[in-house]
Amino acid sequence: MNRTLGVCYYPEHWPETQWADDAARMARLGLTHVRIGEFAWSRLEPRRGAYDFDWLRRAIDTLHGAGLKVVLGTPTATPPKWLVDEMPDMLPVGADGSVRGFGSRRHYDFSHDGYLEECKRITLALARAFGEHPGIAAWQTDNEYDCHNTTLSYSAAARAGFQAWLQRKYQSPDALNRAWGTVFWSMEVADFGEVELPNLTVTEANPAHVMDFRRYASDMVVRFNKAQADIIRAHSPGRDVIHNFMGRTLAFDHFAVGADLDISSWDSYPLGFLEDRSDQNDDWKRQFARAGDPDFQAFHHDLYRATSKGRWWVMEQQPGPVNWAPHNPAPRDGMVRLWSWEAFAHGAETMSYFRWRQAPFAQEQMHAGLLRPDSIEAEGYFEAAQVAKELGELEGELDDKAGLADVAIVFDYPSAWAWEIQPQGREFDYFRLVFDFYRSLRRLGLSVDFVPGDTPSLEGYRLVVIPGLFTWSPALLEAIKAHDGHVLIGPRSGSKTADFAIPQGLPPALPDDLLGVRVARIETLRADTPVPIQGGGTFQFWREYLEVNAETETILSAKDGVPALVAKGNCHYLGGWPDADLLLEILQGLSANAGLSVRELPDEVRLRRHGHHVFAFNYGATPFDLTDLGWSREPLLGSRRLEPSGVAVTQLSDAGY
Amino acid sequence: MNRTLGVCYYPEHWPETQWADDAARMARLGLTHVRIGEFAWSRLEPRRGAYDFDWLRRAIDTLHGAGLKVVLGTPTATPPKWLVDEMPDMLPVGADGSVRGFGSRRHYDFSHDGYLEECKRITLALARAFGEHPGIAAWQTDNEYDCHNTTLSYSAAARAGFQAWLQRKYQSPDALNRAWGTVFWSMEVADFGEVELPNLTVTEANPAHVMDFRRYASDMVVRFNKAQADIIRAHSPGRDVIHNFMGRTLAFDHFAVGADLDISSWDSYPLGFLEDRSDQNDDWKRQFARAGDPDFQAFHHDLYRATSKGRWWVMEQQPGPVNWAPHNPAPRDGMVRLWSWEAFAHGAETMSYFRWRQAPFAQEQMHAGLLRPDSIEAEGYFEAAQVAKELGELEGELDDKAGLADVAIVFDYPSAWAWEIQPQGREFDYFRLVFDFYRSLRRLGLSVDFVPGDTPSLEGYRLVVIPGLFTWSPALLEAIKAHDGHVLIGPRSGSKTADFAIPQGLPPALPDDLLGVRVARIETLRADTPVPIQGGGTFQFWREYLEVNAETETILSAKDGVPALVAKGNCHYLGGWPDADLLLEILQGLSANAGLSVRELPDEVRLRRHGHHVFAFNYGATPFDLTDLGWSREPLLGSRRLEPSGVAVTQLSDAGY
Amino acid sequence: MNRTLGVCYYPEHWPETQWADDAARMARLGLTHVRIGEFAWSRLEPRRGAYDFDWLRRAIDTLHGAGLKVVLGTPTATPPKWLVDEMPDMLPVGADGSVRGFGSRRHYDFSHDGYLEECKRITLALARAFGEHPGIAAWQTDNEYDCHNTTLSYSAAARAGFQAWLQRKYQSPDALNRAWGTVFWSMEVADFGEVELPNLTVTEANPAHVMDFRRYASDMVVRFNKAQADIIRAHSPGRDVIHNFMGRTLAFDHFAVGADLDISSWDSYPLGFLEDRSDQNDDWKRQFARAGDPDFQAFHHDLYRATSKGRWWVMEQQPGPVNWAPHNPAPRDGMVRLWSWEAFAHGAETMSYFRWRQAPFAQEQMHAGLLRPDSIEAEGYFEAAQVAKELGELEGELDDKAGLADVAIVFDYPSAWAWEIQPQGREFDYFRLVFDFYRSLRRLGLSVDFVPGDTPSLEGYRLVVIPGLFTWSPALLEAIKAHDGHVLIGPRSGSKTADFAIPQGLPPALPDDLLGVRVARIETLRADTPVPIQGGGTFQFWREYLEVNAETETILSAKDGVPALVAKGNCHYLGGWPDADLLLEILQGLSANAGLSVRELPDEVRLRRHGHHVFAFNYGATPFDLTDLGWSREPLLGSRRLEPSGVAVTQLSDAGY
Ligand SMILES: [Zn+2]
Ligand SMILES: [Zn+2]
Ligand SMILES: [Zn+2]
Repeated sequence: MNRTLGVCYYPEHWPETQWADDAARMARLGLTHVRIGEFAWSRLEPRRGAYDFDWLRRAIDTLHGAGLKVVLGTPTATPPKWLVDEMPDMLPVGADGSVRGFGSRRHYDFSHDGYLEECKRITLALARAFGEHPGIAAWQTDNEYDCHNTTLSYSAAARAGFQAWLQRKYQSPDALNRAWGTVFWSMEVADFGEVELPNLTVTEANPAHVMDFRRYASDMVVRFNKAQADIIRAHSPGRDVIHNFMGRTLAFDHFAVGADLDISSWDSYPLGFLEDRSDQNDDWKRQFARAGDPDFQAFHHDLYRATSKGRWWVMEQQPGPVNWAPHNPAPRDGMVRLWSWEAFAHGAETMSYFRWRQAPFAQEQMHAGLLRPDSIEAEGYFEAAQVAKELGELEGELDDKAGLADVAIVFDYPSAWAWEIQPQGREFDYFRLVFDFYRSLRRLGLSVDFVPGDTPSLEGYRLVVIPGLFTWSPALLEAIKAHDGHVLIGPRSGSKTADFAIPQGLPPALPDDLLGVRVARIETLRADTPVPIQGGGTFQFWREYLEVNAETETILSAKDGVPALVAKGNCHYLGGWPDADLLLEILQGLSANAGLSVRELPDEVRLRRHGHHVFAFNYGATPFDLTDLGWSREPLLGSRRLEPSGVAVTQLSDAGY
Repeated sequence: MNRTLGVCYYPEHWPETQWADDAARMARLGLTHVRIGEFAWSRLEPRRGAYDFDWLRRAIDTLHGAGLKVVLGTPTATPPKWLVDEMPDMLPVGADGSVRGFGSRRHYDFSHDGYLEECKRITLALARAFGEHPGIAAWQTDNEYDCHNTTLSYSAAARAGFQAWLQRKYQSPDALNRAWGTVFWSMEVADFGEVELPNLTVTEANPAHVMDFRRYASDMVVRFNKAQADIIRAHSPGRDVIHNFMGRTLAFDHFAVGADLDISSWDSYPLGFLEDRSDQNDDWKRQFARAGDPDFQAFHHDLYRATSKGRWWVMEQQPGPVNWAPHNPAPRDGMVRLWSWEAFAHGAETMSYFRWRQAPFAQEQMHAGLLRPDSIEAEGYFEAAQVAKELGELEGELDDKAGLADVAIVFDYPSAWAWEIQPQGREFDYFRLVFDFYRSLRRLGLSVDFVPGDTPSLEGYRLVVIPGLFTWSPALLEAIKAHDGHVLIGPRSGSKTADFAIPQGLPPALPDDLLGVRVARIETLRADTPVPIQGGGTFQFWREYLEVNAETETILSAKDGVPALVAKGNCHYLGGWPDADLLLEILQGLSANAGLSVRELPDEVRLRRHGHHVFAFNYGATPFDLTDLGWSREPLLGSRRLEPSGVAVTQLSDAGY
Repeated sequence: MNRTLGVCYYPEHWPETQWADDAARMARLGLTHVRIGEFAWSRLEPRRGAYDFDWLRRAIDTLHGAGLKVVLGTPTATPPKWLVDEMPDMLPVGADGSVRGFGSRRHYDFSHDGYLEECKRITLALARAFGEHPGIAAWQTDNEYDCHNTTLSYSAAARAGFQAWLQRKYQSPDALNRAWGTVFWSMEVADFGEVELPNLTVTEANPAHVMDFRRYASDMVVRFNKAQADIIRAHSPGRDVIHNFMGRTLAFDHFAVGADLDISSWDSYPLGFLEDRSDQNDDWKRQFARAGDPDFQAFHHDLYRATSKGRWWVMEQQPGPVNWAPHNPAPRDGMVRLWSWEAFAHGAETMSYFRWRQAPFAQEQMHAGLLRPDSIEAEGYFEAAQVAKELGELEGELDDKAGLADVAIVFDYPSAWAWEIQPQGREFDYFRLVFDFYRSLRRLGLSVDFVPGDTPSLEGYRLVVIPGLFTWSPALLEAIKAHDGHVLIGPRSGSKTADFAIPQGLPPALPDDLLGVRVARIETLRADTPVPIQGGGTFQFWREYLEVNAETETILSAKDGVPALVAKGNCHYLGGWPDADLLLEILQGLSANAGLSVRELPDEVRLRRHGHHVFAFNYGATPFDLTDLGWSREPLLGSRRLEPSGVAVTQLSDAGY
């Protein structure tokens, strides 16, 4: 595999006279890919039907002429004013009932059939015009689905679409009433047309009702994306179809969208995300203010890699300070390079910076680029140049694929929706729970793969963890039964039926011959009242009262005697949300049993295995000595004294695995 | 009096084949009362006029056949979809102007005449069908008025109703203009039709305007309840009419609703209420996370007992973890029993658990019952069984009635509205103020009665406290004058006329021969700037500058010399909100003067006198030695070493009173 | 100049029989001015066209008869109900799209042409009726523009007005598209009628779009005020036109409104403002809870003095506890007197208390007056009496004018809008930044003038500071070039073009021969991650990476080597937001260079130069010894031992300047 670098570019923002020079500089820097076009609808079609593709063709020609490969975006995230005025009911509606209007971006409702037709029309026009252009290497559909919380809309279009979706699913109102348990509080409907959207109710709506609405909304994103992907495939043979996901975006099922993509990509803003979507406390945010959370990027690299059969990119990489977080510091020197290399360590094909030149106008004028607004090279430019050089030096050495990781985590988007609907305790959040498991595994130096909740196989993984799974898919249940590695289930996994009800035999709803445990009762806890565990550590936020069969072994108990971790053979069940140290200890024990070699890393240092090599990354501001981890020879890249923001790569055999 | 236990049950949630077994188990457990039916409208009338009461009759027959007494609820808290679709303007409207829709419960506007007629219709149909059924012991009207803040609605129906109410009250716009002082800011109206609802104004609305709207809204709840009570009484002779109030619910006048009830009941969720409606700090919440606030339940027992001439129940008792608070821990072992006994100590006739079996579906699926969803006994079941057994053992011993308490607190719902409308300082809250007084009295081991703000007599109480009273009723003023016990008035009491104006002679608007004090000026204080009092302690949040007549005695002064506590004869006035220790000291002194014997209890331990007995309750996690309080003999129930969650009862003479 | 005292009075609130007595008491107290009428529309015109001015004439006659001068307010801040019902679309609309209704005050939209006409009509009627009445000394237009955030409205009238305003400004949609950079995110418009208001967008709107809307909204306030001022001037010759501004009110350009006034005034509520609009921490708020922030009143005295060519009043002075802040404590004894004298020290002509007698009814019933509701003198009365007496004693001594201050600060309302639109870091706030500079200068004992962002001259100021200026006006640029005093620019000054874009050569967009510095990059910082500066102190919240030309001197650098303070000749640029101590140190150094004599004052003590005298004020609760500042003789007023809440005045030569 040829690892490549790219950049996002907006020819429509700059005088045409500048394009050739920009292209030449990109190529000189060592970039190979350029994403363009994704917000340009008002320039591609200034009035209905008045297509103006000539400038885009000239831009593509210019880039192509400089040896660059173009990723062409469909402009559907920014419908122009004339279109919105033609069909104002295409606008999304917030949960509070107010219309979210024109004037920024993503002002459309995924449920709106009329807008979907418009998107197909412009996509078709672009695909016909540029599908076979030799400069086009790939396509991006739309931009950052769900950004600004746009998956959920409470419009008339959504209501009609949801009712039709329910009719297809349930066939009869009676079936819906039974599935949702509408007998409770007289919520029964006699007709699908009576089903309201689940917002603006007096108190909380029926969780089964909300859950179906969440599924419906996710399906609408899948439908929207697939409509474009199908058109592109039909008219642009051999080109990859890509979408750029965002960080900690859970409102739609990325596995389902990914199924229609060739390549999943995501937009990685380590400093912005630390500021605006991390659960860590202020000390942590202060410590990593100029580096980002050491596990956040890796988490998404691993997760999105799983959504499209292993092929993945970073489509937008933070190159300097951004504009949208509560605070927007500059990255520490070297971090842009580190982030770039980390993507490759996790198997990225292409790592693309956002953006080429800082725009001096409009909403993102304070967002850094590789160039400053005055076209002088910004800090990120030089770090990108170093990556380009190092990529060339190492290219022969590294394997094509990352290969299977040590541990698999089951990740399931509907579980995120379920626990958002019914957290039961204020802190219960699916992402946070899974992230805790992920970070603990990484603190042990392990590499992680994600697998979806309906994975048919867990083969090859010596350890599989399944925290917080809403409900069992038959496939996963079979995969667990067939699996001979260690499996850690819980907390809260299997606690619901697909209809959002408590399973008849109580959670975790696993056959007795597999585990022999029942969750008799649960409780949620204030952060200051954790439950102490015998031998140290606590359960926080969430705790279960487990009943175990005679043949099930209790490995850990709470100080009040309630079983905390139980097992039958290789199958384990965890009855609470462990604090960080307890979770580390539990996973350390399981890893040892599973024959995985682990080492405890400081918060700032992370490893990632890639084929026959292992990468080391230092997110900290002080050096770290890799000989402590058994690195005996000088690395291929970097040195054993891992500098602040440092990167090192060594042979796997030498890394102490 | 035969003290009894009950449970809430939803036959419509379970297969009919299970009913008889459920009923038999209830009876075996020692329950005698079962509340049913209050959310079943969609099953009782699936379409307009298509009544289906047969299943309900079979359910009542089954329960009755097992020897159980049924409390039948009117289903008006959950109007079905077809009815809402017929008259969508029956939906309540939030203060922000958005309609609160179908999909949960309590989606109706108390002002809507059309919906009121519907409620009368279904109530009449039920009362005719079941009014004389021998299994019916009582009725519950609707369910939890005001739950989810549903007393106030800003609908067109509310506006029209309010205007008509104002016309009845004021007769002429001029009278309204004078009463409200609308000359201020040119708010004058020329016609009652010009009066708007007091929401969505640019800045705060006229407090007199808001106060009348609050009175109106409370009256609408009274009207709504009375309409049902009248029908039930007419068609179900000899049965008690009950409503189940909620905790810290102040939006309507419970005395006024209670006047139309035979029995007031309330829904007691000690852990949920600690989490979501306590003013205490995090340390306190942590300490009592598994027990509940030691005074919160007692407060409502005492308050609601007062609203219906002494007859009262707990209609819903928390049996385990609930689902609706920010955190939902499990009760400490024994607390369900303690809460049950505490209700009886405060004079309850019936203590009913919510609910029989945990429902595995819909909104409350995470709310524990006496049975788990799989019908196995949950923890609460065993504690209920113990209570049933102990009730049998003690029944002959205890008096029928609790009798008069040591101290009376005047509690007045309009005062709660007034200070919500005009807190003047962020922390000023009527409930919080009264609760501080209540807790202090209980820390002294005293038993408390509440009396309404228009009580005509204070006879029998050696001490009466009147904190934060909005305005004087003529009745209460006469009662004070006639009273020979000690009276403590203030802070802020009598500070307004009924028209929400400052009284002409300044607060507290009492005749000089009674007290001889004037509030010349008030100030509200940040929590970190309390006013120190000579001799120790502080005024917090609220402080008055008192002017006293020559013959009025100053008992306490602030360090800056301003009188803090003054008295004339047995009548005292308190010019600020004392901190906990100062309040304790003040009440201790007054109690001593009043000849009440007091003892200072730790936070966790509380006493309650009941006829010739006294109960002791331990909300704490460590034992408490009752011999410290002078208990010399072994109690009738429990032991002098009061265990965590322990209950003890002894003869009054032995308790040191 | 004859310094005078006044009071606000509402004859319509009191029986006519009381007027004469009130007037006589006012005169006896030493008041000379009385403001009346500003909320009385419903009494002046109870129905359309049915003017009733007789009572007002009798009130004016009564006051005039007592020797008092009347300031007559136009009643346009409180349109009556009948008028609102005639044109309900005159109501303002919040950013959330909900109409802000009748029932309090300021319920009108500045954009509404119909309401503007009504205001002109009532103003004309009043001006004709009373314009030449000998008792009328001045007029107040409306009341407290923008109070309750009423400058911005998102109504249909605002949308139409904004579109017309844009058309006048840009002439063609193309020009608007270019200026705003709407090519970004396809926000282009083909017609001015397509421009939406910038609220309710999916994510943030284009900053250039919002900025123009802010300018438009400010222009509407100017238009509104000017319409009244023109009418008054035409019909009430020789009388001053005044408006009363509020504290920390930035939504409209007070310089632009002030241009149409004879006198700017403001409503000074030191305790309320400390509680509800200060950036200081809780310790500070506790320390000054009964005094107010020692710099807040002075800041507004100096700022508003600048908006109307030096003539200014305090129209409303807090006389005791108010009703509208989160907490409303009583002022420390002496503070009402201190605040009064402080206004005169900063050059006020008239200092008017709000209000004469506390109203016992309606919204402000808990707002103290000089009299209590029972007409007894309140605390403020006696302090006002003392001021009146002292004014008489000192009148011959003091100069007419305050004269030029030591330092000028450029204050620019559009900069406040700009950084509200684009803070880039959560703490970045224009007022807070400028206030930090102002306080630091005052800590050094300096007196400060404000000048607007388009001032054509800086003559006479040895030091000029220009923090956070959005964009350069040509006038100010020329003034700086012409200036021979010291100038301190930055942080963030000149960082945008007028079109809200980054300047081509990067900020601060100053000619190289003036300064020779470029801001290559900026970052915003969490409060817990400041940037340390060599030699001590930090940059907080905001930091710039400066590039300097060879001939530009670096005076201070950050510890990471980035220049922090640079200079060329007398022109300095500051690349970050200094903490309080660093800012003090920087300004101390610059003052020394500028030849200004400074002395470091404690937080509680402030000086103000006035002509040939200097005032000292003690906001603290302990005495301060003025001999420490070189005061060698007994002051004209007060003593060298400056008591808590004390005021002293001495000859300039003696003050150590
Ligand atoms: Zn992006
Ligand atoms: Zn309930
Ligand atoms: Zn005012």
